[in-house]
Amino acid sequence: MQTFGLTIDKFLDHAAKWFGDHEIVGADAGVAVVRLGYAPFRERANRLSGALGALGLKVGERVATLAWNTPDHLELYYGAMGMGLVCHTLNPRLTAAQLAVMVEEADDRLLAVSVDLLPLARELLAACPGIRHLVCLDGGNTAPSIDLGDVQYWSLQALHDMHGAPAAWGGFDENLPAGLCYTSGTTGRPKGVLYTHRSNYLHTLRALQADAVALTARDVLLLAVPMFHANGWGLPFAAPAAGTKIVLPGRHLDGASLARLMRDEGVTVAVGVQTVWLGVADQLEQTGETLRALERVLVGGSACTDAVRERLERVLGARVQTSWGMTELSPVGTIAPPHGTVEAGAGRPTMGLDLKLTDADGVTLPEQRGKLGYLKVKGASVVDRYFAAAEDVLDAEGYFDTGDLAMIDTAGNLTICGRAKDLIKSGGEWINPAEIESIIGAHPAVRHVAVIARADARWGERPILIVEQEGDDPRGLLRLLEGKVADWWVPREVAQVDSMPLAATGKIDKNRLRADYARGAIVTQDGRG
Amino acid sequence: MQTFGLTIDKFLDHAAKWFGDHEIVGADAGVAVVRLGYAPFRERANRLSGALGALGLKVGERVATLAWNTPDHLELYYGAMGMGLVCHTLNPRLTAAQLAVMVEEADDRLLAVSVDLLPLARELLAACPGIRHLVCLDGGNTAPSIDLGDVQYWSLQALHDMHGAPAAWGGFDENLPAGLCYTSGTTGRPKGVLYTHRSNYLHTLRALQADAVALTARDVLLLAVPMFHANGWGLPFAAPAAGTKIVLPGRHLDGASLARLMRDEGVTVAVGVQTVWLGVADQLEQTGETLRALERVLVGGSACTDAVRERLERVLGARVQTSWGMTELSPVGTIAPPHGTVEAGAGRPTMGLDLKLTDADGVTLPEQRGKLGYLKVKGASVVDRYFAAAEDVLDAEGYFDTGDLAMIDTAGNLTICGRAKDLIKSGGEWINPAEIESIIGAHPAVRHVAVIARADARWGERPILIVEQEGDDPRGLLRLLEGKVADWWVPREVAQVDSMPLAATGKIDKNRLRADYARGAIVTQDGRG
Repeated sequence: MQTFGLTIDKFLDHAAKWFGDHEIVGADAGVAVVRLGYAPFRERANRLSGALGALGLKVGERVATLAWNTPDHLELYYGAMGMGLVCHTLNPRLTAAQLAVMVEEADDRLLAVSVDLLPLARELLAACPGIRHLVCLDGGNTAPSIDLGDVQYWSLQALHDMHGAPAAWGGFDENLPAGLCYTSGTTGRPKGVLYTHRSNYLHTLRALQADAVALTARDVLLLAVPMFHANGWGLPFAAPAAGTKIVLPGRHLDGASLARLMRDEGVTVAVGVQTVWLGVADQLEQTGETLRALERVLVGGSACTDAVRERLERVLGARVQTSWGMTELSPVGTIAPPHGTVEAGAGRPTMGLDLKLTDADGVTLPEQRGKLGYLKVKGASVVDRYFAAAEDVLDAEGYFDTGDLAMIDTAGNLTICGRAKDLIKSGGEWINPAEIESIIGAHPAVRHVAVIARADARWGERPILIVEQEGDDPRGLLRLLEGKVADWWVPREVAQVDSMPLAATGKIDKNRLRADYARGAIVTQDGRG
Repeated sequence: MQTFGLTIDKFLDHAAKWFGDHEIVGADAGVAVVRLGYAPFRERANRLSGALGALGLKVGERVATLAWNTPDHLELYYGAMGMGLVCHTLNPRLTAAQLAVMVEEADDRLLAVSVDLLPLARELLAACPGIRHLVCLDGGNTAPSIDLGDVQYWSLQALHDMHGAPAAWGGFDENLPAGLCYTSGTTGRPKGVLYTHRSNYLHTLRALQADAVALTARDVLLLAVPMFHANGWGLPFAAPAAGTKIVLPGRHLDGASLARLMRDEGVTVAVGVQTVWLGVADQLEQTGETLRALERVLVGGSACTDAVRERLERVLGARVQTSWGMTELSPVGTIAPPHGTVEAGAGRPTMGLDLKLTDADGVTLPEQRGKLGYLKVKGASVVDRYFAAAEDVLDAEGYFDTGDLAMIDTAGNLTICGRAKDLIKSGGEWINPAEIESIIGAHPAVRHVAVIARADARWGERPILIVEQEGDDPRGLLRLLEGKVADWWVPREVAQVDSMPLAATGKIDKNRLRADYARGAIVTQDGRG
């Protein structure tokens, strides 16, 4: 059989050849401001490769992006990866100091930045002397508004005008790296995940399966998950591979902007975290608008309760597909299918990813259904070792430890049941904070809830309940637990905070909570008081 | 990213783990006679590997099958491929002499044969001393009914009872061969296509895309295309990969048997050549039955006219997906999507296959839409050289020449417009027999039509029309061409045959027609007479 390298440039080549007039639309505050077909887009991205080569960048070197979901950012993806550079996506919601750690480890040579993020970029450049070139995205031919020292500045358009030229794409080993993304770092130093062309290609084919993301050439995709989160969940690859029109919303993800954009562009499939879709649902309820073209909403990033799913399905008039993933998985792990009976949990793995549940010692549970276990995964798009790490992170059978506790029902649907490291050992037995959080979090007055451990002389550890809520007596919430968890699981100490500390990904920062509690910044009251 | 070999054993592992109770059903004359879930089936196929190992078979060696679509045959597929043997499928509609050429070239060590094909197998064994073992499928514990000389005989069940044992699957290089299938050989010596694990794996992921075959875990597949035709179009891999229940009809593909089976098993997706579906349509029209569960019928193997497609859609009450493929392509090339507006032709290539049209000299046509050209293909599941051949069959850009003439419309849909070698050069200009055949073939009295060339002193070549039809004056058919093709394309000589010679795949054997004409066995009359 023919040699045919699994490199991601083939996705855009396919789109340009077979769906050349299917559009990439860029928007600002809900209004389309750029649109071009895959054919001209492919030509532009390819000429950008020529320009990057003219700047002296070489196969295997890293270029960083600090940008929103825009056509310029997507062009950077393909312009870099197509010629064998590694596209390192940075999260603009982190601080310059946090980003600098990543940029230094990655040894990025060029930074591409959305025009409104130039101030953050300036801070970053000051800390990262390795960056030689700054490319300004989304600003047309904007001149530099900041002092850049000896860093060479280009607007993307100026770079095209000066150096744009056709370039050879692909043709290298499919195991070469294509992308780099750091985990959120809520649990210590951020860890880089280095994606390869092969891992991205196979992740894409896995996503396109009819029981997974299942994009088609008739679909219109709204990509509301940031492209700096684990390849935008792989959609920047899957959309051109399927010939799907793609709508990139820019930085504004509020309900009003997105609802307008979805209606105007006839979006059929929308992808993002549930907070975003709750915003759209609020907007629709307030205005009475409907989104007639919308068929499916893919929700990920955190567990979606049945109540949220049902509300979204009712208000948006679309099927909700729940999912579970991780940066280390490229990122999709499991997904509920687009059709058929509504599934519980976060769906099943599609072909190409294998899951297993083990006990705390890593021994595979003899019964994989209906039992809580430690979740391990294997697949062509799963990390084996972190960037610049000496050691791999796999068990003897080659599985990656997700750090999650999970359960699989008889139909094969996965439910994440908390983080293994968050488990609380009290009197020699385990308490799972996630179960308590799930019950308390269902109360309408509660905005955020976290259960953490405090040291206890008698029991080893005891749980503390911390909430951000309306009202001022959190103790009453404990009654919700009666009869639902064992009595000794119920926290005896409760604290209310004005604002729950969140990591850049939106997850509650439990390390911060533990530190705040330790230094007395969180004061608890007796829950029985 | 992790090492994760693309080997086909993973499909069955996935099905067994996630869809262990989704069934494989074996039928005989429309009645289900065997059914078992993917989990027990996987265990059986794996234990068969242990037995094949006990017979002394080693990684890379070939085993042949001469069998219908049955669970036993599918077990052979996985039992052989899972442990690294090459499964060589033979077409029972060929003669023993034709098969012997293939078996000898392949150096097959074992022959697995459906019980009713034992007489053919005995002939074949006599000609092929390299075969050391005969395994009888589909007959339970049947003892040998034929004299086998020194060939060791096993029923599949006896082989299990004696040597069945768990075996290691996969773990080898994904580029190892997995399957071998010979082209029909209507155009000379049959040519072997050696599939690899990687090519089959990637073909499967291509098929599972939502715009392609798009199987899901909710579907029930009827596999009515023989498993000896190019991997049964890849469905024996795609079905377990998607967790799809699979119905294997055995040798009986008549309309009554299939209609009953489809109704009883709730088939949602049916795959086969159009003749088979026309038989089912006849049956439904005669009996007034309906197939309520049926959603889609995938038609391939030959071009499907709009009239046939419309009739099938109306009578079967299902969407028809047209397609084009070749043994050399594993075999799917293009396919019409399962949803959306009805497409013309044979659909589009899905991600992972590239097409181009060239002129007769192999130069890429500057305009790829709306122009007739020579069709070339590239992809991970496309042949580069035939089995045991010294030379590859690729052009300078790495494309395989299909030998077909084709056209691509503005929406990207492919239409095959005949074979390049069938073109007739008359007066220095080309006549395309396929166009004439298409017009004549649309007449209800015509069962088969072929246009071939005869040598002509003045024009070089001239076309002859040969038909199998009701009635006895084929000359009247020529009037159908008036105004539809150039006057000089119209054949001046016409012949009627009682029975058109067909190759084993059902295609008209034009080599035979040319030979029959040359030796005077086909007598033409003057079309203007």
